[in-house]
Amino acid sequence: MANIPDSHPRKASLLSRQRIVEATKDGLLADSAMIAHGRGEAFDYLLGEKTTDSAKLAIKEVAARLIAAKNPVISVNGNTVVLAGKALIRVAAILNCPIEVNIYYRTDERMSKLNSFLESQKELLSQEDNPKGWNGDWSSAVMSVNILGKVGDGRIEGLEGPRSICSAEGIERADVILVPLEDGDRCEALINLGKQVLVVDLNPLSRTAKMATVTIVDEISRAAELLLEYTIKNNQKPTKWNNNDVLNESLEIIASNADI
Amino acid sequence: MANIPDSHPRKASLLSRQRIVEATKDGLLADSAMIAHGRGEAFDYLLGEKTTDSAKLAIKEVAARLIAAKNPVISVNGNTVVLAGKALIRVAAILNCPIEVNIYYRTDERMSKLNSFLESQKELLSQEDNPKGWNGDWSSAVMSVNILGKVGDGRIEGLEGPRSICSAEGIERADVILVPLEDGDRCEALINLGKQVLVVDLNPLSRTAKMATVTIVDEISRAAELLLEYTIKNNQKPTKWNNNDVLNESLEIIASNADI
Repeated sequence: MANIPDSHPRKASLLSRQRIVEATKDGLLADSAMIAHGRGEAFDYLLGEKTTDSAKLAIKEVAARLIAAKNPVISVNGNTVVLAGKALIRVAAILNCPIEVNIYYRTDERMSKLNSFLESQKELLSQEDNPKGWNGDWSSAVMSVNILGKVGDGRIEGLEGPRSICSAEGIERADVILVPLEDGDRCEALINLGKQVLVVDLNPLSRTAKMATVTIVDEISRAAELLLEYTIKNNQKPTKWNNNDVLNESLEIIASNADI
Repeated sequence: MANIPDSHPRKASLLSRQRIVEATKDGLLADSAMIAHGRGEAFDYLLGEKTTDSAKLAIKEVAARLIAAKNPVISVNGNTVVLAGKALIRVAAILNCPIEVNIYYRTDERMSKLNSFLESQKELLSQEDNPKGWNGDWSSAVMSVNILGKVGDGRIEGLEGPRSICSAEGIERADVILVPLEDGDRCEALINLGKQVLVVDLNPLSRTAKMATVTIVDEISRAAELLLEYTIKNNQKPTKWNNNDVLNESLEIIASNADI
């Protein structure tokens, strides 16, 4: 990776971009992953490349709902694995819930590479100290995070073809699903099945953002770090959430940044 | 390429995306070309994926300035070649000006591929009928468009390293340069050399957009088609142009689209 000086005001953004470029070369991501990342970059730029107050509220709500869930699952696609895989394994370890690799353009090769990537991150994470504020056996908590997805033994009713494939132990039986960077059709199908769908989407105008139970309008690696913090704190119950409020607040910020 | 039905409301955008993905596979584009394209997609989405009235005024102004120029040149990078190469060769044929391939991450392989791509487009275009409204020997006009860039015998003063390389017959001696999808540093250096820099940039907040002589805030393939039309019409002289006006108008449209 090229050397970006610490003083660069957009260092985090440039590092994320490099990670996506490298992972594409390594065959972890589909062709269009870089385009999706670029779209996200533009929205993040308009949001000021920082987590807004309303996004913080949404992340707290997501933490509360994951903690209160009966069968939570964290569904990850390629970009999420690359940008926030490590932080989300930590969250899953604390929640004691599985992570399911579930990608739009499903190939055995990419499923296998993403699975291996997460397994190797687990190994590394299990050797770390306990996350700040969390008490327990960290190594065994991390190693017991089940990485699902390779076995497509479940179905998402209402979808057709490869996109309907999921894990029976993961998305199929889950009541609450955290799905960063989701596609609109799948979000809709999951909502229609009565599940709570918690999404991370930088475009507050997207179908996913509008349809989800809770939408975090934020960049996934920033959001995942905060989600970890709030999951450890665990000091909030799920609220009666009005998702339109956070979408409108994000749009107001974009509008005000565009209105110079 | 996948088959996108004519009825799809975002067909043009999806076709452009496919072109960028294919060209990346063919080695015409740098790693980050897809990310840049995705950023553009997001801004275009916020602009409503259509050419705004203020962008039309900017395209007319650009046509007038290219026609009035002593030594105009059209500088193209990889994404521009892929998305609008054909239309820009037509414009160059009518203006009787060269096209210079000038890319940020310069490698001999990509320079050569982009050059060959444009030369093969010239061959195809030379066999077409005259563009509507243009009288002259089309075949010879097209075949006489010089594709520069492979020989880096010129320099852009004020830049260092590979980015300072240009063609002596092209950018170095030009008084007016059309540079779609430009980087900020190079735009600044060219302005400092007293040249008119006419850019196409979907981000009205970018350094390039703010620094250019005339900024077309529009998607490059749409802008190139309109530029061709206005260049053929040739019914306007350069005006006393206020570039801030078009930038502000684009920002107002983004703000109003974001403000639902």
